[in-house]
Amino acid sequence: MIVSKKIFKFVDNNLNELISELQTLIRQPSVSAKNEGIEECAKLVSKIFKKSGINSEILRIKKGVAPVVFAEVKSKKNPHRTILFYNHYDVQPVEPFELWDDDPFSGKIRGNKIFGRGSSDDKGELITRIKAVKAFLKTQRDVPCNIKFLIEGEEETGSANIDKYLKKYKKKFSCDGVIWEFGYIDSKNRPIVGLGMKGLLFVELIKVESKIDAHSSLAVIIKNPAWRLIEAVSSLRDSSGRILIKDWYKEVKPFSKKDIELLRAEPIDENSFKKEFGIRDFVGKKSGLELKMALAGSPTCNIAGMISGYVGQGAKTVLPSKALIKIDFRLVPKMNPKKQIERLKKHLKRKGFGDIKIKVYHGEAAARTDPNEPFVKNVKSSADEIFGKSILNVSNAGTGPMHSFVKYLHAPCISIGSTYIFSKIHSPNEFARIDLLKKTTKCICQILEKFGK
Amino acid sequence: MIVSKKIFKFVDNNLNELISELQTLIRQPSVSAKNEGIEECAKLVSKIFKKSGINSEILRIKKGVAPVVFAEVKSKKNPHRTILFYNHYDVQPVEPFELWDDDPFSGKIRGNKIFGRGSSDDKGELITRIKAVKAFLKTQRDVPCNIKFLIEGEEETGSANIDKYLKKYKKKFSCDGVIWEFGYIDSKNRPIVGLGMKGLLFVELIKVESKIDAHSSLAVIIKNPAWRLIEAVSSLRDSSGRILIKDWYKEVKPFSKKDIELLRAEPIDENSFKKEFGIRDFVGKKSGLELKMALAGSPTCNIAGMISGYVGQGAKTVLPSKALIKIDFRLVPKMNPKKQIERLKKHLKRKGFGDIKIKVYHGEAAARTDPNEPFVKNVKSSADEIFGKSILNVSNAGTGPMHSFVKYLHAPCISIGSTYIFSKIHSPNEFARIDLLKKTTKCICQILEKFGK
Repeated sequence: MIVSKKIFKFVDNNLNELISELQTLIRQPSVSAKNEGIEECAKLVSKIFKKSGINSEILRIKKGVAPVVFAEVKSKKNPHRTILFYNHYDVQPVEPFELWDDDPFSGKIRGNKIFGRGSSDDKGELITRIKAVKAFLKTQRDVPCNIKFLIEGEEETGSANIDKYLKKYKKKFSCDGVIWEFGYIDSKNRPIVGLGMKGLLFVELIKVESKIDAHSSLAVIIKNPAWRLIEAVSSLRDSSGRILIKDWYKEVKPFSKKDIELLRAEPIDENSFKKEFGIRDFVGKKSGLELKMALAGSPTCNIAGMISGYVGQGAKTVLPSKALIKIDFRLVPKMNPKKQIERLKKHLKRKGFGDIKIKVYHGEAAARTDPNEPFVKNVKSSADEIFGKSILNVSNAGTGPMHSFVKYLHAPCISIGSTYIFSKIHSPNEFARIDLLKKTTKCICQILEKFGK
Repeated sequence: MIVSKKIFKFVDNNLNELISELQTLIRQPSVSAKNEGIEECAKLVSKIFKKSGINSEILRIKKGVAPVVFAEVKSKKNPHRTILFYNHYDVQPVEPFELWDDDPFSGKIRGNKIFGRGSSDDKGELITRIKAVKAFLKTQRDVPCNIKFLIEGEEETGSANIDKYLKKYKKKFSCDGVIWEFGYIDSKNRPIVGLGMKGLLFVELIKVESKIDAHSSLAVIIKNPAWRLIEAVSSLRDSSGRILIKDWYKEVKPFSKKDIELLRAEPIDENSFKKEFGIRDFVGKKSGLELKMALAGSPTCNIAGMISGYVGQGAKTVLPSKALIKIDFRLVPKMNPKKQIERLKKHLKRKGFGDIKIKVYHGEAAARTDPNEPFVKNVKSSADEIFGKSILNVSNAGTGPMHSFVKYLHAPCISIGSTYIFSKIHSPNEFARIDLLKKTTKCICQILEKFGK
């Protein structure tokens, strides 16, 4: 360990404060998809920075866009190297509400777990970064390198404005390395050090047939928009999941030798996975390397939601007037979101579905950090030291705006964090593990110390 | 007119009472799909019978089944002929609630319209029958023939128990003719005298993939139940609407020459229809005879509802754990609901969709009354006399348990009523037209008078 014992002791002794501040954050709803509590939560984050002895400011680009909370601590002993923490204060919607055991914004503690929307994603992660910095400030009155925080409020709806923030404030955000907003801990308590993120397109396909719902006896003469929409989306992929839109995969590159090497070395606990979700097999009965390659590098076309007609209890013989399907496409490096949207639009027209309306919620590109970057070694070794062992991951299966960070800050981005892989993020009963919050705080201390050397 | 002027005058003079009693009925919710207010409404109907001088009783077959309200008036002058009014006191669910201009159970009046769920279907129809009988009782202290009422409470969920009621109480219900629970009035104010009803199968198809919703980044390895269900239902029909289940149409007979003759004579206002629903063309661009043949005699496979995943505002990147699609199939004469369910189940298995759960809500067969029955002439001529002109219809596109009535009572069933064809039954802002309620009450008087001759 290169971090002084005093610092780790401070982390241990102040764990209760970490927990209670995380509860405070959870209790402030901040659902970006519904613009619920966003301003309030940004202010709360500023308050927590202040309480921790860190200066912060609220940045804005225009009305209606969630503010970014920026915070900064300059290092006296090493003012030439800067690390930036990227996190977000917004959370996913809580629906389906009825499947939560507690109020989703309760912050209820049971044993080693803190429950609530955002407990892991991303309020839990944020608090570990803040507490690591506070540990240095309180014990050493200095930090090992310059530290910056960029805390956004639209991550869960696809970071639609992060690119604009990065462009406008790129000098303010300039840094030599970015610690990403999350990091998974696998079922054997090993942190996954992540080097990449997939991209995402989120669209809504809508078919409106008539002005009003009709009695379903009229289905014989009035068209059903649900059938029409089902036909349209059925043209998007085959039953194996392969996307049938022309040129969808055109720019996709195969994995490098180094990538395959890392993927091979990466463990995957297939059984825990299956047990957690109660499934018998994976898509295409994949396993081993094939499964890992899919997670790191396969594009998807996922139905995130669909609705039409009567969905209450029992029978209602109705012919719906409209139908809606929400789809998210995961993208991999080199796929350009704008180009892919055009391809989707062209596809529907070409297949005769020009009557289907497309609402694009957002698109963002994928990104990956080169495994040979020195910053990778710093983070990986810090994680090994604190957790015993860690795993290097070519790309996360999820999406984040890493591409924009690389574009404007030219800094390597690495994800490392406290999120237990089965902590039900984006689902009912999301939780954070207290043991992992503590260890991750120490791991961040270690990374900072090494970064300053 | 064969009915005395005194009777029609009574109907005219007591229109306010008809309206206020209909409002009372509307204000009592009675949604059978949710078992909401069913018992209360049955009691309310009994109360209205009593107030009208008609003896009634509440019949039951077993716990958990909505009661039937039975009422009877014996004729002194003609005790050998009996007419039975079949109606229902239950209503459709009100969803989507937000599209109603008023409380769905308000009974609000605007000009010639009474709004509310059940105002037309079927509380409006019921009140016309009761008021016709009351007019005879109050003016003549007798009725032209024996009269019976069978008012059920499960029509809107498919009359699952009417067969059992008819079997158990067939002597009590015995009659020489049945006036059906509804009857449409077309856009030119012509009653449609209906001789048949289609059958119905209502099923729910359910696919459960995993125990919990997952982050949609996992769509690359966890299967999506919405996609699976879409594949399954896509196998049920082609894009023209033709059902692809093996032998689905096996027992279907073509129309008789007399049927085709009646269909040709039947007017259809295609433009009003299109305008009402805001559609540009009908299924398969049908028109004229083809359209009328579809309404009277084509089976359908309609998506009445579908839901999966996140359907709130904005984007949520979720991989749903389950998906559900509600489907109603309309059946035509000779199609046996039980047989059709087996065919559906076999189809899914054969196509490799044995993992899709099927929940059958109910099945009921179609029925048609022979156009040459003397009762047809009575009703048709009564309607012509009161409304100026009426239309004879081979079969309604909708469903009712007519088949069970024919099976147990061996009596011809004819629908005639007050429901304006665009009165939004089963949809938000359902209404009844006051002018039609009055005319239909008189028409029922006329039918009763003729039936007693």
